[in-house]
Amino acid sequence: MIQRRAFSSDNWAGVHPEIIAAIAAANTGHAPSYGEDEYTKSVAEKIGDLLGAEEVFFVFMGTGANVLALESIARSYNAIICASSAHIHTSECAAAEKYIGCKLLPVAASDGKINREGIAEHVHHLGNEHHVQPSAVSLSQATEYGTVYSLDEVRVITAYAHDHDMRVHMDGARLANAAAHLGVSLRALAKDSGVDVLSFGGTKNGALAAEAVVYFDKKLAKDFPYRRMQAMQLGSKMRFIAAQFDALLTDDLWLRSATHSNRMAALLGEGLAKIPGITLTQKVQANEVFAIFPREHISRLQQVFEFQVWNEASTEVRLVASFDTTENDVTTFVDSVRECVGS
Amino acid sequence: MIQRRAFSSDNWAGVHPEIIAAIAAANTGHAPSYGEDEYTKSVAEKIGDLLGAEEVFFVFMGTGANVLALESIARSYNAIICASSAHIHTSECAAAEKYIGCKLLPVAASDGKINREGIAEHVHHLGNEHHVQPSAVSLSQATEYGTVYSLDEVRVITAYAHDHDMRVHMDGARLANAAAHLGVSLRALAKDSGVDVLSFGGTKNGALAAEAVVYFDKKLAKDFPYRRMQAMQLGSKMRFIAAQFDALLTDDLWLRSATHSNRMAALLGEGLAKIPGITLTQKVQANEVFAIFPREHISRLQQVFEFQVWNEASTEVRLVASFDTTENDVTTFVDSVRECVGS
Amino acid sequence: MIQRRAFSSDNWAGVHPEIIAAIAAANTGHAPSYGEDEYTKSVAEKIGDLLGAEEVFFVFMGTGANVLALESIARSYNAIICASSAHIHTSECAAAEKYIGCKLLPVAASDGKINREGIAEHVHHLGNEHHVQPSAVSLSQATEYGTVYSLDEVRVITAYAHDHDMRVHMDGARLANAAAHLGVSLRALAKDSGVDVLSFGGTKNGALAAEAVVYFDKKLAKDFPYRRMQAMQLGSKMRFIAAQFDALLTDDLWLRSATHSNRMAALLGEGLAKIPGITLTQKVQANEVFAIFPREHISRLQQVFEFQVWNEASTEVRLVASFDTTENDVTTFVDSVRECVGS
Amino acid sequence: MIQRRAFSSDNWAGVHPEIIAAIAAANTGHAPSYGEDEYTKSVAEKIGDLLGAEEVFFVFMGTGANVLALESIARSYNAIICASSAHIHTSECAAAEKYIGCKLLPVAASDGKINREGIAEHVHHLGNEHHVQPSAVSLSQATEYGTVYSLDEVRVITAYAHDHDMRVHMDGARLANAAAHLGVSLRALAKDSGVDVLSFGGTKNGALAAEAVVYFDKKLAKDFPYRRMQAMQLGSKMRFIAAQFDALLTDDLWLRSATHSNRMAALLGEGLAKIPGITLTQKVQANEVFAIFPREHISRLQQVFEFQVWNEASTEVRLVASFDTTENDVTTFVDSVRECVGS
Repeated sequence: MIQRRAFSSDNWAGVHPEIIAAIAAANTGHAPSYGEDEYTKSVAEKIGDLLGAEEVFFVFMGTGANVLALESIARSYNAIICASSAHIHTSECAAAEKYIGCKLLPVAASDGKINREGIAEHVHHLGNEHHVQPSAVSLSQATEYGTVYSLDEVRVITAYAHDHDMRVHMDGARLANAAAHLGVSLRALAKDSGVDVLSFGGTKNGALAAEAVVYFDKKLAKDFPYRRMQAMQLGSKMRFIAAQFDALLTDDLWLRSATHSNRMAALLGEGLAKIPGITLTQKVQANEVFAIFPREHISRLQQVFEFQVWNEASTEVRLVASFDTTENDVTTFVDSVRECVGS
Repeated sequence: MIQRRAFSSDNWAGVHPEIIAAIAAANTGHAPSYGEDEYTKSVAEKIGDLLGAEEVFFVFMGTGANVLALESIARSYNAIICASSAHIHTSECAAAEKYIGCKLLPVAASDGKINREGIAEHVHHLGNEHHVQPSAVSLSQATEYGTVYSLDEVRVITAYAHDHDMRVHMDGARLANAAAHLGVSLRALAKDSGVDVLSFGGTKNGALAAEAVVYFDKKLAKDFPYRRMQAMQLGSKMRFIAAQFDALLTDDLWLRSATHSNRMAALLGEGLAKIPGITLTQKVQANEVFAIFPREHISRLQQVFEFQVWNEASTEVRLVASFDTTENDVTTFVDSVRECVGS
Repeated sequence: MIQRRAFSSDNWAGVHPEIIAAIAAANTGHAPSYGEDEYTKSVAEKIGDLLGAEEVFFVFMGTGANVLALESIARSYNAIICASSAHIHTSECAAAEKYIGCKLLPVAASDGKINREGIAEHVHHLGNEHHVQPSAVSLSQATEYGTVYSLDEVRVITAYAHDHDMRVHMDGARLANAAAHLGVSLRALAKDSGVDVLSFGGTKNGALAAEAVVYFDKKLAKDFPYRRMQAMQLGSKMRFIAAQFDALLTDDLWLRSATHSNRMAALLGEGLAKIPGITLTQKVQANEVFAIFPREHISRLQQVFEFQVWNEASTEVRLVASFDTTENDVTTFVDSVRECVGS
Repeated sequence: MIQRRAFSSDNWAGVHPEIIAAIAAANTGHAPSYGEDEYTKSVAEKIGDLLGAEEVFFVFMGTGANVLALESIARSYNAIICASSAHIHTSECAAAEKYIGCKLLPVAASDGKINREGIAEHVHHLGNEHHVQPSAVSLSQATEYGTVYSLDEVRVITAYAHDHDMRVHMDGARLANAAAHLGVSLRALAKDSGVDVLSFGGTKNGALAAEAVVYFDKKLAKDFPYRRMQAMQLGSKMRFIAAQFDALLTDDLWLRSATHSNRMAALLGEGLAKIPGITLTQKVQANEVFAIFPREHISRLQQVFEFQVWNEASTEVRLVASFDTTENDVTTFVDSVRECVGS
């Protein structure tokens, strides 16, 4: 039915066959709804063990995970400090502001990464009732620009945040890609680096619709069940979200898929970088490539493989590889670009 | 893996095999995300045609559908009039209040149904700035008590509402069961009865997680896309929600499943009604049976088939049939009740 | 300029001359704004001493006081239990729902007073994520029906609430009238009766616009300054709110005024009760009289002294005495009623 | 009692004697509450006539006025574009985000003024559901830096906004100062320059607590009464807010006071500019002076007259003149600075 190939986003991809199979396998008989079934509990426990977490909750989507995670570390008079490119700031239609009532304070971050100095610019007017009080830092790992924080970079941020009575949220919609790039465990990335609460993404890594909110401090999670229900993120047939994560954890599917998509992005980046007239604008670390394409060729190339123009003014484009991107996809596209731009 | 049989809720059931198959069938290649793909659009159109609707949007869950539907017909200073037993009032953890900021005004409704007189009790203080202003009526079809409004009953309500500048929302989490009971079309139930916006449920009727917000007046829907995103109800891989509805609409699966679960509930009700010591408390019209069970037998019977005690004080229990409830389930349970209570 | 006499509400009265004088007296030179001046602090301290409170904050209006008080004892997934006649439920246009996001659960209360049994009806489904979780009880002292809880009645409620992990808010828009009626101190009414947070009203007792939120447990108040600013209740020239309370506390103006208005209401009630055809519907304890008036005489009587028809259906009217109601007002009105109804 | 002199803020000043007198004069007899009295209506009408407005509503405070004005031109999925220095962005503790649920998009503005180009940077992603949709521009006149937009500058902004389906809010907490500086009418500043809704401030110009929300298009105001009540901005004894505006309008007190405070600021600016070591950082147009003071002298000078350090890093200070600032205040302070810095 649907046969297009695209580099538009990793959510243009479908569902990994092992995940489809796990959904089908969970479809036996009746089970308590709303996550009260043993299977869902066991999968949450597996994730907890893998990540070193104290509490794990499933939700439908990334924005839901982010907003619920942030709601546990910010009240309405607080501020959440994040990169100017953060998904929570640019792409969630003010869900956090609407739901939490707080302010997001963006830090300019040309590569999607924030650092201690950038955060510090917003840590002021403490105790002044006219100003929102920073209570949280949110960082995306991997970032929206396909870059990846080193463990040290994360630790510097979490240490600074904790020293200033702030908690740290990690938007891990592409956490697997970060782990694959760094060659470290998911636990090292989050818990061991001082993260307090994590949005752990499954959807962009081959799931149908599966995200988890992962707490490394259970005190923050104590009212989560009520908040999840109220935030319209409590699935009734929860076992089918659990099944998706079960598959992702089985034989390290999460890592296999992320490693693959990272590799495809790397190939793509290498191929494009060699073409005169094409400039990469970001390091290719996770599964995304950002590059300036000549304006006059963009629409023609989009007919080969769809992709997104990230910045209309600079004609920066974004190319995203998925678990199912093939080497053939990459070489076909690179060849097309070479022909097109070189012609 | 999961093998229990239960009458606890229709969301304890799994996914209808035809729906699983449709999900798998939609899993081909890449497709625009967030519902921009042609397939999703075509399924939305099919629903629109079937229901006579002007706009159809997919969301993850029933509470999401309800809140978004209601947000289009109530502002924060408005009130939504509903039955005291309405799911939006009793079971959604104040999602509507939190998200819309408004007040829900419950009407006592021992059989889950409200009428013009009950609604009228809340239509007062119009123009008085100290009082919330009623702008919406919400009714559940079928109701949370398994009863079904006749078309005339709905029409009386919608006419009254429209005469008083109110809009009507129908919570159709079990709309299919109502249609099966009345033997009328989905269109007759909603559009032709004067409903303005409908939550059309798939999940309780065999879907994995699929609900739709259906507008019969597109003016109400004009900002829906932004509101859905902000309300954390915009799925990225939307084609898989569409696929579930596609299956439900194919060869009238929605009707086959609802007819079946209604019939199982009817059988169950008939069987139980004959047992001395068991009193049915509601008419069995959709797929639910409400009955008073002797307190001393409840926990033993719950070991046969799980079910929910609806009212601890009166030991009223709720038994829900699903698309996959079998006649054997019903007779086994009825026999157990007869033995237990008769012993 | 404005010369009418009315029994419509105590907020139809103007400002007590001693309060106007205090405002004028505070109008000397410059002072830190937003309550940072020594004078405001000293008045807050006086109130704290009188009431046995730990923290006292000034706000503009009663709804602001109520919402801010409740926000400190309820999160969005909580419920606040109150009388069906509570001002927060009937007359604040869903300010609490909008601002806190929670649900108000009304208890039927024909005399405006709730009791343990009524509260207990809403204390259920604890731990069930689908249901709002009761965290607060709010009672009005004096009630909206001019009745007054005895100290024992309040203590039974606060004890029950605390036993069930709930906190108690007292809406004291007319607290002075309750104290005057019972002949007890403000401290006895609130702190010593187990109240956690109090809205202490000045406006209905002769102030221009002055309300205080009074905490008997400072833990609840720790983020109040931010919440007050965000809730648009932080006055810049705060000393003029403080001055109003200063006057109210000077020579017990609060008590003199409340005693007077109570006495006027009592006189009014006694006078009306003697008129055949007039039935009092509530005990006259604070400064309000509720009575059934013959429908055909109401508009004529409203031309003598304006008053409010409380219930159009039953032609119950409300008559409120103020600090400046005179015995002549009362006798003139009673005479008019007698003539009118007797004729 | 309070005898300090300060340049900290115009809200450190007290109340103009003519305004105190008007409050006292309004204190006669009983009057309908909540603004239903004839006097309040007549004052609102006077303001409407003066400003060419269609609807005028009184509220307690500036943040209340701003949030309510903005709520009429932004829904939760919208964005409000404003200067990075806007009071609504920096000093209202996220009241707009909490109450409206939307996002504020700041435009860098070193002199407090935004222009078409700055606004245009945020007008993109129109129709993209992931992005908040700009629906409003808010500008402060005079700005938070004491600068004043020319009429042409405002017109360019309002024309651009209207061309892009946005409405324009003017935060006129110091509108009188802007009018005095430009020598134009209040009507020219707002209505005739294309503003849709105005926060018209009284408090900073000598009132006790009086602000108005002024609509130049009554369609925007149709639900204001409910929204004002719900937003905790509806005063019960409203005539006393009306009285403050009545005084401000009588014999042009608003203009006399603003002209005076502007002149005092101008004198202060001129005096300070002549002192070596002091650099003014903004044009002195309204009633504020911004200047870099040598760090080592600041605390000593603050003992002469209190004032606020605006920027700790650059030791930029803010000096605000009020209706009651005297020439003697100015010369005393300038002399102190000269001595201190010159020594």
